[in-house]
Amino acid sequence: MASLLIRNGTVLTNNSRKEIFAADVLVKNGRIAAFQAGAEADHADQEIDAAGSFILPGLIQVHVHLNQTLFRGLADDMNVVDWLRKRIWPLEQAHNYESAYASARLSIAEMIRSGVTTALTLETTRHTEAAFDAAMEMGFRAFIGNAIMDRWETGTEMVGEDTAASLERSAVLSTGYHGAGNGRIHYSYCPRGTRNATDEMWQELGRLAREQGKLIHTHAAENREQTDRLAEYGGTEVEYLNRMGVLGDNLVVAHGIWLSEAERGLLAESGTSVAHCPSANLKLASGFAAVPEMLAQGVNVAIGSDGAPCNNNLDIFNEMRLAALIHKPRCGPESMTALQVFEMATRNASKALGIEDQVGSIEVGKRADIVIVRRNALHGSPTQGSDPYGQIVYALQAHDVDTVIVDGTILLRDGQFTQWDHLEIVSQAQAARAQLLDRVENFE
Amino acid sequence: MASLLIRNGTVLTNNSRKEIFAADVLVKNGRIAAFQAGAEADHADQEIDAAGSFILPGLIQVHVHLNQTLFRGLADDMNVVDWLRKRIWPLEQAHNYESAYASARLSIAEMIRSGVTTALTLETTRHTEAAFDAAMEMGFRAFIGNAIMDRWETGTEMVGEDTAASLERSAVLSTGYHGAGNGRIHYSYCPRGTRNATDEMWQELGRLAREQGKLIHTHAAENREQTDRLAEYGGTEVEYLNRMGVLGDNLVVAHGIWLSEAERGLLAESGTSVAHCPSANLKLASGFAAVPEMLAQGVNVAIGSDGAPCNNNLDIFNEMRLAALIHKPRCGPESMTALQVFEMATRNASKALGIEDQVGSIEVGKRADIVIVRRNALHGSPTQGSDPYGQIVYALQAHDVDTVIVDGTILLRDGQFTQWDHLEIVSQAQAARAQLLDRVENFE
Repeated sequence: MASLLIRNGTVLTNNSRKEIFAADVLVKNGRIAAFQAGAEADHADQEIDAAGSFILPGLIQVHVHLNQTLFRGLADDMNVVDWLRKRIWPLEQAHNYESAYASARLSIAEMIRSGVTTALTLETTRHTEAAFDAAMEMGFRAFIGNAIMDRWETGTEMVGEDTAASLERSAVLSTGYHGAGNGRIHYSYCPRGTRNATDEMWQELGRLAREQGKLIHTHAAENREQTDRLAEYGGTEVEYLNRMGVLGDNLVVAHGIWLSEAERGLLAESGTSVAHCPSANLKLASGFAAVPEMLAQGVNVAIGSDGAPCNNNLDIFNEMRLAALIHKPRCGPESMTALQVFEMATRNASKALGIEDQVGSIEVGKRADIVIVRRNALHGSPTQGSDPYGQIVYALQAHDVDTVIVDGTILLRDGQFTQWDHLEIVSQAQAARAQLLDRVENFE
Repeated sequence: MASLLIRNGTVLTNNSRKEIFAADVLVKNGRIAAFQAGAEADHADQEIDAAGSFILPGLIQVHVHLNQTLFRGLADDMNVVDWLRKRIWPLEQAHNYESAYASARLSIAEMIRSGVTTALTLETTRHTEAAFDAAMEMGFRAFIGNAIMDRWETGTEMVGEDTAASLERSAVLSTGYHGAGNGRIHYSYCPRGTRNATDEMWQELGRLAREQGKLIHTHAAENREQTDRLAEYGGTEVEYLNRMGVLGDNLVVAHGIWLSEAERGLLAESGTSVAHCPSANLKLASGFAAVPEMLAQGVNVAIGSDGAPCNNNLDIFNEMRLAALIHKPRCGPESMTALQVFEMATRNASKALGIEDQVGSIEVGKRADIVIVRRNALHGSPTQGSDPYGQIVYALQAHDVDTVIVDGTILLRDGQFTQWDHLEIVSQAQAARAQLLDRVENFE
């Protein structure tokens, strides 16, 4: 594998001392091999000039639905019940392999364009091989799983599936993809929510995930109405997950809005991670997750865009900016600092995924998941005396991402994809959406 | 003046019937001259192909501080008292003509880049001619005023000024610039806040503004602490403004967060406009303005970025997205629709500025302030069946702005400025910031 030297940039290492320094970064065999002074730098097969730019660890999203990106803009300003029943369920059911594949490609390209090198995603019950294929082909680092839904509410039978059949789907996907792409591709178990899987399923998934060293990725405490209908569980959603034996450092729970202090304590103690999804929580009017309080209690909180129908972007710069801003009216202007938010999008996320020894910082020996961000846009200027984390979180935008490297391979350079044409991805998605809208039933 | 034909786009007219149609738009003598079908279109001196793009009325910001853009990133995650006393006052005092000019150019370029064609701005007590010069030279439409501060709190004497001297500054600027640039440049009276001008000054400004047909632009009800210290006024800030006789359709009040229902009623009845500044209100932890409630009561609400130190961008796409999102948890997912927010950034803003007969929609006879926005970015795709307003407010970004036309003159084309170099503006701002940081006193 070719060596690569990234010259003249300012490295935000995000190491434990949060060092920031000027250095050339040498990448060899997909890993960060050394920091060097400009004059002494080794020759490399390829060089990138990062003068005037920040060099960051790859950014990470921990709650995305790749298949929903094809539905972008089809469900704005709607109440949650209609949003799910009239739009998301029918649209997800209308997917075939081709549409799920087009949606995954579009999603992954959009994330890479905004500096995201890794994502944890939750798909539909069917056609999840399309998401794996897209992530593998595109050189992305991804934790993907089929939605597991062997329990369902009246009126949503169409999305339900048999327990044994569901476990079989998981086994096939796991066997087919887990560990593929030089270890970049991971299978994760994705029971869709506490109410979407049977007790037996939850217990079985807990056992399988522990045995196999895999993640469980689910939704919990997203909206108050769910949280208020707790009697059927004999406790809160988090207490239910605890009783099922699945809380732990291999569980990532999306949203975590309607949690008591005690529940947050359970998450912290067990090492469970929370995916904070500010755009989605606002757009669906779900509420404000108590993120500053969770961080103070020791909960590991990371960031996700959620699905395009409730965002409508997969742009992690949007999510970082919102995560820094929306809690301040409640907790004060000094809460949710830019550095805390940057940590959520890097180190906390790598911890949530159990790969903090591999990514999340720029340190010698780690995988070369690296992002170069230009600082010379009008909206980022001037820079003298600015806090680099503040600049990233509050001022810079996805479009300022110049270069994205995953596992040592350059996927974006000068803001352009190196291995595919963005307009081809767009046309493929346009065509797939047209066909999907022809197939969809019960869409109002 | 050359004629211009914008072909093949989708026109979001924003007329009273909210018509959206495919048409070629003919611009002559700085005005929208006709809508034509492609085949019948007249020849024009210049043509722009807008195939696959939206054609929008120019977007409008109604609360900006051009001079503060030079301080971007110097005041993140700070409490409001320190933010003002340790940063904003000392930095503003350190301005000279050159730094204020560099800051205004950077601000205006950044706004144009995000599709903004008009802004209402509030500057410092001194060097406001720099902001006028920049706006005039750049062909921007602007309502600008020097901060009027003939009353001040203990500890901020440095920013205060004598009543007569202040009125004289206003008169000189008004005489020098009001009506300049083919009528694009307007002088506005800018008492900085209710507590920053004497009763005599408020009354005099009310009289002058009415006589001269000018706007008054101020801050009110931004933070709870101000609102709680009301005794000294014998009423709330809005009641004070009412008593001073300045409420009316020529008054624009920034923020309007801590208002009672009765005060909102006073604003509605008097025709006073509110500049909603969501990024700034969140970043300074000021609170959530009751925008859905104001709109329901008939208050004319528009949008502003406020200053870069509390944002840190002047990107109206950021502000539209936030305005649509942040009120939903309180008022529901169906509140603050994309169309309502788009109206805030166009028609409501033109009404706030008293120029709704000239701009704010694409209609024959209006000034040609036009923005062309590409829809083919990854983050905007796919598009079939999407609501155009939803796409603009939730999905598209400043970088998708392709072309900006003010008064019939093309200022941005293919995302590039036609009349200046963005890197030259950035270097000028970098140099001016370095010199300003050398001059600044009492900066901690």
